[in-house]
Amino acid sequence: MPVNLSAPVAANLLPVAGVSLGTAEAGIKRAERKDLLVIKLDEGTTVAGVFTTNRFCAAPVTVAKNHLAAGKGIRALIVNTGNANAGTGEQGMDAARNTCAELAKLLDCAPEQVLPYSTGVIMEPLPVEKIIAGMPQAISNLKADNWFDASQAIMTTDIVAKAVSKQVQIDGKTVTVTGMSKGSGMIHPNMATMLGYIATDASIPQALLQQMVSEAANRSFNCITVDGDTSTNDALMLIATGKSGVAINEANYTAMQAVVTEVATLLAQAIVRDGEGATKFITIKVEGGKDEAECKQIGYAIAHSPLVKTAFFASDPNLGRILAAIGYAGVTDLNVETLKLYLDDVLVAENGGRATSYQETDGQRVMGQSDITIRVVLNRGKVNATLWTCDFSYDYVKINASYRS
Amino acid sequence: MPVNLSAPVAANLLPVAGVSLGTAEAGIKRAERKDLLVIKLDEGTTVAGVFTTNRFCAAPVTVAKNHLAAGKGIRALIVNTGNANAGTGEQGMDAARNTCAELAKLLDCAPEQVLPYSTGVIMEPLPVEKIIAGMPQAISNLKADNWFDASQAIMTTDIVAKAVSKQVQIDGKTVTVTGMSKGSGMIHPNMATMLGYIATDASIPQALLQQMVSEAANRSFNCITVDGDTSTNDALMLIATGKSGVAINEANYTAMQAVVTEVATLLAQAIVRDGEGATKFITIKVEGGKDEAECKQIGYAIAHSPLVKTAFFASDPNLGRILAAIGYAGVTDLNVETLKLYLDDVLVAENGGRATSYQETDGQRVMGQSDITIRVVLNRGKVNATLWTCDFSYDYVKINASYRS
Repeated sequence: MPVNLSAPVAANLLPVAGVSLGTAEAGIKRAERKDLLVIKLDEGTTVAGVFTTNRFCAAPVTVAKNHLAAGKGIRALIVNTGNANAGTGEQGMDAARNTCAELAKLLDCAPEQVLPYSTGVIMEPLPVEKIIAGMPQAISNLKADNWFDASQAIMTTDIVAKAVSKQVQIDGKTVTVTGMSKGSGMIHPNMATMLGYIATDASIPQALLQQMVSEAANRSFNCITVDGDTSTNDALMLIATGKSGVAINEANYTAMQAVVTEVATLLAQAIVRDGEGATKFITIKVEGGKDEAECKQIGYAIAHSPLVKTAFFASDPNLGRILAAIGYAGVTDLNVETLKLYLDDVLVAENGGRATSYQETDGQRVMGQSDITIRVVLNRGKVNATLWTCDFSYDYVKINASYRS
Repeated sequence: MPVNLSAPVAANLLPVAGVSLGTAEAGIKRAERKDLLVIKLDEGTTVAGVFTTNRFCAAPVTVAKNHLAAGKGIRALIVNTGNANAGTGEQGMDAARNTCAELAKLLDCAPEQVLPYSTGVIMEPLPVEKIIAGMPQAISNLKADNWFDASQAIMTTDIVAKAVSKQVQIDGKTVTVTGMSKGSGMIHPNMATMLGYIATDASIPQALLQQMVSEAANRSFNCITVDGDTSTNDALMLIATGKSGVAINEANYTAMQAVVTEVATLLAQAIVRDGEGATKFITIKVEGGKDEAECKQIGYAIAHSPLVKTAFFASDPNLGRILAAIGYAGVTDLNVETLKLYLDDVLVAENGGRATSYQETDGQRVMGQSDITIRVVLNRGKVNATLWTCDFSYDYVKINASYRS
């Protein structure tokens, strides 16, 4: 079960004026399951995004980037689950382009004004005819107050849907930000099998919007990892309709950035809390590093160690495994004598070994919690970094050994 | 159960003149279990080794390196299981030095002529008094024909012992090489929780011996991975007694190197075959790369992907996961259109997607085997690299979630 995470309450998800959402059961992989989502945007909306860095990026990623670059203004996004349309070659590119063209016909816009997204099994042909056949159903139930259904339609191995709304006062007016995400495995920085859509009714010029989504991603989705795999399909999109009448500029940028980052962080953390088989939510803080790169390097070495992750699953304060991970992280001039390791408030290690004050019962107490913070104080600089991950359980293996069946 | 690997047959393990081995039940972690090994070497023996690159290297690693550097000639090695003496600070250094000093007294040599090795739990004090108390028992059963018992005494989570002998004719005389290894988790290049001891009765000068063990490690122990964790304690030692009367020099170096590398490779592969919870032995060949670094980078991305490893556990030809791993390996100028992916002899992917000739039944047939080769042909250079790994099963989690209990 997800770690301290419940499904969103539909009534708490605020509509964003200018955005309507409609879902369909297109039978892409299984029958009787919402697996297709259309997001329709009013004219004048700006859209920006960040995408996977995987060299085998999926066809829809390439098409979405091209369509954004065309600069005609985006009028719709379409998301399917059940098939990732990745590793599908030229045929996959045709399928993604056809999807956009068919939706464009139905919505009376240009194909370049539609962005496609796919998530699911890799290297199987996209059943594009099922997607096309499902479009009328999705369009028929388009409405602004539909984020709950939409967040369900983009789930794959997710146990719960992930969506959140925040409001903020900017220039004396209320700005709404609502977002949703999906993903629970193959999660790693630089966008894992992770889709995120955040919309606001602020008006944000294209260049500022791109800067805002990149910065938000770096502090949220690029700081989570479940298993170290970076997917072929990831994307985080930021949509600004301008319907609130609040225009974002250099002066009020910080306030808007803060709320977007807050929403992105909650959505990213929700992915980890629903990490495949997760029983623990682990925050890793690496402090006092020379630069962000080495802090993240050490943080990810800890976060990716199957030995660390299984020890957390077992609630076993086998904390030497964390020291070992710090040691092999690749920071070659690291002085292990001067660093300190904490588990929540408990000092575990210093001076190259176990702290004399450390009691196994203290470690055991913290390990019994479902939310745990690992803090590594490097004492060699002034930079900090925070990552989020989860433990590694029987169920991770079970889920991933049976995903296709 | 280990994948196509049985315990060694005692009668097949050939003694190496000049080397005697004795074991004891010292009760370091559990009672009634061989957990202490003394290897005694005749005078004039040369010893060289390669050690973990982990910054948190264990106290015995530091002491062993110092004693080798002292250059007084090594007369004994001592290995304990049940406790790694790692992350133990200055107290751990004292414990390792005391161990050497006490054994030196009993064997009438200098403390610097003894090399210590420990493997087991990290960050708990080494019970040095139990080790000292066990030494007389180990010394009392020292004998040349004792490799089988010795290979059992160094096991931790290993299911079977690992040892092998080979003989080769050099300069018209028979040279014997016998080796043993331990390890089944925390296995990664640059020496994982892995101990290896290879002895020969050839005479090999110190500088050549160091070159030989480094080269052998690079083609064997540094090409295996179970879970990507690099341990604090790893060592591969090469011991040359000279009792065969065969002297190794530049002229006959290659023949000797070949047999040492063969033994090292068998011992390294045995560790993967006995990988924690392994049900499949996977050979990863990356061919046609620009340099060895990028071949290994891609190979390890595949080998470390939990999604790939769980798919192999499930015998599920979900081969898109391999493409995804190739894509995020970090070779930023990789052209995915020109590479080919094979599973044994089956062409799986080319032209950026599934090969048109590929049939799921062919993939399924190969996935049903217990020994499988993944071959990636990059078509961008002339360099090849081979790695070995295993799959990821329920039992990996089970073993590592309960290791200390």
